[in-house]
Amino acid sequence: MTEQLILHEYSASGNCYKVRLTAALLGLPLERREYDIMKGETRTPDFLAKVNANGRIPVLQDGGRFIPESNAACFYLADGSPLIPEERFDRSDMLRWMFWEQYNHEPNVATMRFWVAFVGQENLSDEQRALIPAKRKAGDAALKLMDEHLAGRAFFVGDRLSLADIALYAYTHVAGEGGFALSDYPAVQAWLKRVAGQPGFVAMQD
Amino acid sequence: MTEQLILHEYSASGNCYKVRLTAALLGLPLERREYDIMKGETRTPDFLAKVNANGRIPVLQDGGRFIPESNAACFYLADGSPLIPEERFDRSDMLRWMFWEQYNHEPNVATMRFWVAFVGQENLSDEQRALIPAKRKAGDAALKLMDEHLAGRAFFVGDRLSLADIALYAYTHVAGEGGFALSDYPAVQAWLKRVAGQPGFVAMQD
Repeated sequence: MTEQLILHEYSASGNCYKVRLTAALLGLPLERREYDIMKGETRTPDFLAKVNANGRIPVLQDGGRFIPESNAACFYLADGSPLIPEERFDRSDMLRWMFWEQYNHEPNVATMRFWVAFVGQENLSDEQRALIPAKRKAGDAALKLMDEHLAGRAFFVGDRLSLADIALYAYTHVAGEGGFALSDYPAVQAWLKRVAGQPGFVAMQD
Repeated sequence: MTEQLILHEYSASGNCYKVRLTAALLGLPLERREYDIMKGETRTPDFLAKVNANGRIPVLQDGGRFIPESNAACFYLADGSPLIPEERFDRSDMLRWMFWEQYNHEPNVATMRFWVAFVGQENLSDEQRALIPAKRKAGDAALKLMDEHLAGRAFFVGDRLSLADIALYAYTHVAGEGGFALSDYPAVQAWLKRVAGQPGFVAMQD
């Protein structure tokens, strides 16, 4: 890893916040470059050719190399650090929660937040509007699964903070912006406080 | 890792095939337990309590421990093997493609296959039917991105097979069953042959 780490981001995105939070907890400085996704700034020919052919942020840049996908960028920063468990089962268990986050949590909890708080319900297409009940139900199911897992546990994997907590913290702590009631999930609420109390923690808006 | 590895699976699922293919390429024996997802066999109270609270397969079992999420199960099997690159950037780059697979590829390419070849278009709900154009477009965009990346490359990361190839092979090689035209993607077709030619390779129906 070089000392020239650049984060290509949209700072209100939870996926981008994951990378900032990981870097902060590791004490790694990160240069930030902002793109307005509402104006399509990650779909320009220049962005697609140079930063990410998939047209999405975050992308972590280390010297001349680029790492798209938030959870992969977090892994790159944390590789070899205590944020990734050393034990084989725990390491895969951490990845299990990170894959689950991208498949079961983000498309529901984060998308609802984006639609409600950023796009505005009145601006949604008919197709998007039709998906709201299913996304709300699946988002609540994801939060319930987290709540049950966290009952009696301090963190998602083993007994210490890992990238699984960081990946899940990002959109969970702002789930209320998407209309989810975090008060229904007391173990999640206690865990959110635990993550926010970690040395080096930075808030999303920092 | 113990020698008692059990795969809880639905054998026609590409996500389950990933785990079998990883095990085969590593020469690891795997006991297989079949569940009929069309009959809800992964949503029974017993399955939810003992195997996966998320009600999904595959789940890899090693002794008394369980690893849901296909790509995490593959990582567990391959940890420390040549299927995971040693170099830091390449390791994260492999994960980047695996996260991309679960977020951009599987929900489109695999879901279209499931709807067309397993559920049957006539049995889809109105909400599902309304999503078909967007899923077809996003699936084709995923295949195009793969094709462009693979032009001039033998494998997704570095110059050898990794879990990124296994994760992407699983649903790509049967994309035709979902109505995608693989003939539009020549670099993908050449790569599919390259993966299928690996020593130890097993086919999905094996």
